[in-house]
Amino acid sequence: MSYLTLRSQSRCFGGKVAYYAHESDCCNSPMNFAVYLPPQAQSQRVPVLYYLSGLTCSEENFTVKAGAQRYAAELGILLVVPDTSPRNTGIAGEDESWELGSGAGFYVNATQTPWQKYYQMYDYVTEELPEIIEQNFPIESDKQSIFGHSMGGHGALTCALKNPGKYRSVSAFAPICAPIQSPWGENAFSTYLGEDRDLWKAYDATELVKKTQLPTEILIDQGTEDSFYQAGELMPEVLARACETAGQPLRLRLQDGYDHSYFMIASFMGDHLAHHAHYLNQ
Amino acid sequence: MSYLTLRSQSRCFGGKVAYYAHESDCCNSPMNFAVYLPPQAQSQRVPVLYYLSGLTCSEENFTVKAGAQRYAAELGILLVVPDTSPRNTGIAGEDESWELGSGAGFYVNATQTPWQKYYQMYDYVTEELPEIIEQNFPIESDKQSIFGHSMGGHGALTCALKNPGKYRSVSAFAPICAPIQSPWGENAFSTYLGEDRDLWKAYDATELVKKTQLPTEILIDQGTEDSFYQAGELMPEVLARACETAGQPLRLRLQDGYDHSYFMIASFMGDHLAHHAHYLNQ
Repeated sequence: MSYLTLRSQSRCFGGKVAYYAHESDCCNSPMNFAVYLPPQAQSQRVPVLYYLSGLTCSEENFTVKAGAQRYAAELGILLVVPDTSPRNTGIAGEDESWELGSGAGFYVNATQTPWQKYYQMYDYVTEELPEIIEQNFPIESDKQSIFGHSMGGHGALTCALKNPGKYRSVSAFAPICAPIQSPWGENAFSTYLGEDRDLWKAYDATELVKKTQLPTEILIDQGTEDSFYQAGELMPEVLARACETAGQPLRLRLQDGYDHSYFMIASFMGDHLAHHAHYLNQ
Repeated sequence: MSYLTLRSQSRCFGGKVAYYAHESDCCNSPMNFAVYLPPQAQSQRVPVLYYLSGLTCSEENFTVKAGAQRYAAELGILLVVPDTSPRNTGIAGEDESWELGSGAGFYVNATQTPWQKYYQMYDYVTEELPEIIEQNFPIESDKQSIFGHSMGGHGALTCALKNPGKYRSVSAFAPICAPIQSPWGENAFSTYLGEDRDLWKAYDATELVKKTQLPTEILIDQGTEDSFYQAGELMPEVLARACETAGQPLRLRLQDGYDHSYFMIASFMGDHLAHHAHYLNQ
């Protein structure tokens, strides 16, 4: 069992925000995550909702900016927010680009040197971290869901689609929907996974949904004034076409005038928490 | 009329967060502030609520961390968040201490060299900024209220008590209630106002309430695990005794287990917005 170091905690909406560090086996390095324990967790087990953050973020951005704790307190949901990559691994250049390395793990298991020793974020998020959460917090382990933003929206969609039944529901804010077709994804996947593009499909939501569909509706919010959407990094329409062809229920909402920031995320956080609570409380 | 430079804006809860810069006459330097325009402001004039931030903060902390926009959107209130001091004035050492100079204007009109040329934060917050807001945004100028946190709670209380009738209501999170008795206040007031302690009383809520009472109840929330409260910087009990003696209505709530952070502020933001809406919508 991984030993957790409590870095700080604060009372919040009757529950508690807490930041932890631990030694990750699969990432072979220290990792950080944040949790929000709702007030209900003081006396009973509660469902758990994982949030995967976007490029440049740590576990802190969501925790301080998204305004999710109010809803989680009302709904009795424990939130878990991992960091977006290992850090300070010693890999040369790991901090040089905001689109690669530190803060940019892309939720894949790297196969390429030197990244593969540390950047096992897919296993970390879907296996190691859930085990740690189950061992250390009062959760109902059969009730977990996942969501995320941008790179983390890609992460949430792919984690759910690669593991039908593992998550009761999935949603995303402005996710990278077809990373193998986007500049961000091509840059990251060629670095972490190598040049064989067929192997990239294992981490592309648009490709995955062609093979596997989820029984529950996917919820995606996308702002129309999001500069990364306009630049072709996100491509929700490409995923929507694949979902339609495959018969995957998807509710894609284009939100007029909203950008890529946490102001957009906060504005629709209540809808996403309600979406997950609907499935988690069944 | 002060010319405003729009630095950035984002849609948020159907309204808009916007960051502005302008040349301040009374502070003789550029100043920054943030606003939140609720959706109602697109078609009608709305009440305005000023928020004064604490030590080390800029206009950004509240804007991204406090979760106030959701409530302001529901209640139809425009939020205005000034920076906590002039910046880059060229005063020697202005950035050296987090308790003095940049980020620590203390909402007073400095009388001492070299601060007095720039640090006129009391006039800025109570006169110049409200004029700018009235000239540039669709507000009901007879409906304004004020609140704040820590140093900004001190600012809100003193701005209200020095100007009965100017603000319809006042509240504070963990305010410095008796700055002339606290290490923070003694350090700042001796620097900005000089060594004559009698002159400091003009900016001390506990002293002011002895002379002037407000018709509306003051709301204060104070976390019991707040390290600055425990260190004697805040002293809400001293203000409470002065209010009781003077007949000033005060609702002081000690919040069990909460600290000095924005997690505490966010947790009680809804109560404070409702407090102000009650008076602003009369």
